[in-house]
Amino acid sequence: MQTGQFKLGNFQTQSGDVLQDACLSYETHGELSADKSNAIVYPTWYTGTHEDNRGAIGVGKALDPERYFIIVPDMFCNGLSSSPSNTKAPQDRGRFPSITPYDNVIAQHRLCGEHFGIEQLQLVVGFSMSAQQAFHWAALFPEMVKAIAPICGTSKTSPHNLLFLEGIKRALTADASWANGDYVDPPENGLRAFTTVYASWAFSQTFYREGLHLTVGGQHFDSMAEFLEFFHGIFARHDANNLLGMLETWQLADVSNHSKFGGDWRAALSSITCPAIVLPSKTDLYFPPEDNEVEVSMMPSAELRVIPSAYGHAAGFPGLSTAEDDEFIDDALRELLSQS
Amino acid sequence: MQTGQFKLGNFQTQSGDVLQDACLSYETHGELSADKSNAIVYPTWYTGTHEDNRGAIGVGKALDPERYFIIVPDMFCNGLSSSPSNTKAPQDRGRFPSITPYDNVIAQHRLCGEHFGIEQLQLVVGFSMSAQQAFHWAALFPEMVKAIAPICGTSKTSPHNLLFLEGIKRALTADASWANGDYVDPPENGLRAFTTVYASWAFSQTFYREGLHLTVGGQHFDSMAEFLEFFHGIFARHDANNLLGMLETWQLADVSNHSKFGGDWRAALSSITCPAIVLPSKTDLYFPPEDNEVEVSMMPSAELRVIPSAYGHAAGFPGLSTAEDDEFIDDALRELLSQS
Repeated sequence: MQTGQFKLGNFQTQSGDVLQDACLSYETHGELSADKSNAIVYPTWYTGTHEDNRGAIGVGKALDPERYFIIVPDMFCNGLSSSPSNTKAPQDRGRFPSITPYDNVIAQHRLCGEHFGIEQLQLVVGFSMSAQQAFHWAALFPEMVKAIAPICGTSKTSPHNLLFLEGIKRALTADASWANGDYVDPPENGLRAFTTVYASWAFSQTFYREGLHLTVGGQHFDSMAEFLEFFHGIFARHDANNLLGMLETWQLADVSNHSKFGGDWRAALSSITCPAIVLPSKTDLYFPPEDNEVEVSMMPSAELRVIPSAYGHAAGFPGLSTAEDDEFIDDALRELLSQS
Repeated sequence: MQTGQFKLGNFQTQSGDVLQDACLSYETHGELSADKSNAIVYPTWYTGTHEDNRGAIGVGKALDPERYFIIVPDMFCNGLSSSPSNTKAPQDRGRFPSITPYDNVIAQHRLCGEHFGIEQLQLVVGFSMSAQQAFHWAALFPEMVKAIAPICGTSKTSPHNLLFLEGIKRALTADASWANGDYVDPPENGLRAFTTVYASWAFSQTFYREGLHLTVGGQHFDSMAEFLEFFHGIFARHDANNLLGMLETWQLADVSNHSKFGGDWRAALSSITCPAIVLPSKTDLYFPPEDNEVEVSMMPSAELRVIPSAYGHAAGFPGLSTAEDDEFIDDALRELLSQS
């Protein structure tokens, strides 16, 4: 494994703002082959950093570093790539520019080309917000991407998903100590509300009915309160402005939001001609299978393969997911890689 | 229609507190027959007052005031029955006692017996929190209740439902102006967060995907923002402490929480021997059909009849629901009343 920081310079965003001295953080696994033909991109998701992707990468897995060169670019606003928390005035904190999934993908594309000289990707795989980036990759660079595997994510944030996000955003910012992002003390009460609401969305009704929240990621919890404390920790390690920045990227996700497609969702999805296995979780409450079903019907070479899990959205979250769900996903990745 | 205020005196609650000078507000429709055999109880739900039940009552409907005497008792904390907003110190505002569904049902039972002299109910029907009260009625007074129709509600608040409620409670109380219930100005930001999160739960993903939120209850909205403003209004007419009081009742809902059952959920449900048609909405996100399925399996004379609706929880909400869903429910009530 190696980490790096790729300097993007002054980076033009889709919002119209230029992000000054932009930087893309990343981690790589394995070695790039001499002909540069073995690369995979696997971006990070909401709350994730490149460290969190490690759980899905390993010898013997589909994402095998002995065979592939796996690049894990950190999403803007995750605290490692350019983010509200690490950017200088006047673009610091709440003044950080809006970032779209395309902004992330364009930065990642530059990393692949300018830094590594890669012209082809065997696979772009992603979970949740990084599944959204996988859709964007395939639509914008069809000649470069040989296959995609979006896990628990859509090409465009649905109205319901957008509303879920609006709710948690309002919960966080209802705390007056947030102060439009210029807080002195972190907005602790707002963040508690945020993570409590989030916990009710991230797993399924059945997950809680069956008490599965009492054993997650190999850890045991004696009560719902203990589980919530654990879940809160996933978010609490992040700066509140970073959380809001990534949330905005999520709300803005729309594969058709590019001059190439001019807002035509069908055109954008039709342009994804590479093989795709789209992997929603059966019980995902904010990226439900029905949303992917509509998308797959517009994609020429895509298959919908629903993860039969009670874990809700977390079915695809390495570290929170079950061994069974991990294997289900790994099989799909292996299948795509064997074809590409 | 007639409204009334039934004086309960000093009312012993399950929490151990005695609610001083307690009062149960109610409305009745139709006339009580000479032999007092035509009574129906239909309590109010979260955010509801007796005015909101009127939409489901009318000549030609199952709940026909020309045939039945329909009592609509206002739930404690709804602003009309004893509530944080209308109770004197030292039990005012955040100091109002915890109220359980059983407290409501016991007060309603006294209204029926002491005030009206009713010994038998043809039906207890309820939506959401009032569905919870219907379960409680049948378990506690099996000799009195001839049938129940719980619509979009369970006998016990599930862990997931409890977490959903905890999330919105934290969203409201993250607003420092709430001041533990002793607010001077209402906690407007907290309430906005509360209702935004609530809106994402109250209807289904499909409801929003298909744009059904743009036409609700006969009203047209030009945008999600306009719809949210309308939805916000359902809650904003209530005092924040009342909203939190009813929310606590909801969180405490457990049909087995009575000395008669001693916490044995199966025993409580098995004791509901009257005919029951349990009516969840197929797409309800916090009272999902699966929760009722488990319950019905423990009830000797119950049938699960899923409302095939995209309206989520609101499928059973008179005024927000569709004519088709209303009719589906009305048919079930008619069937129960024809048997009883």
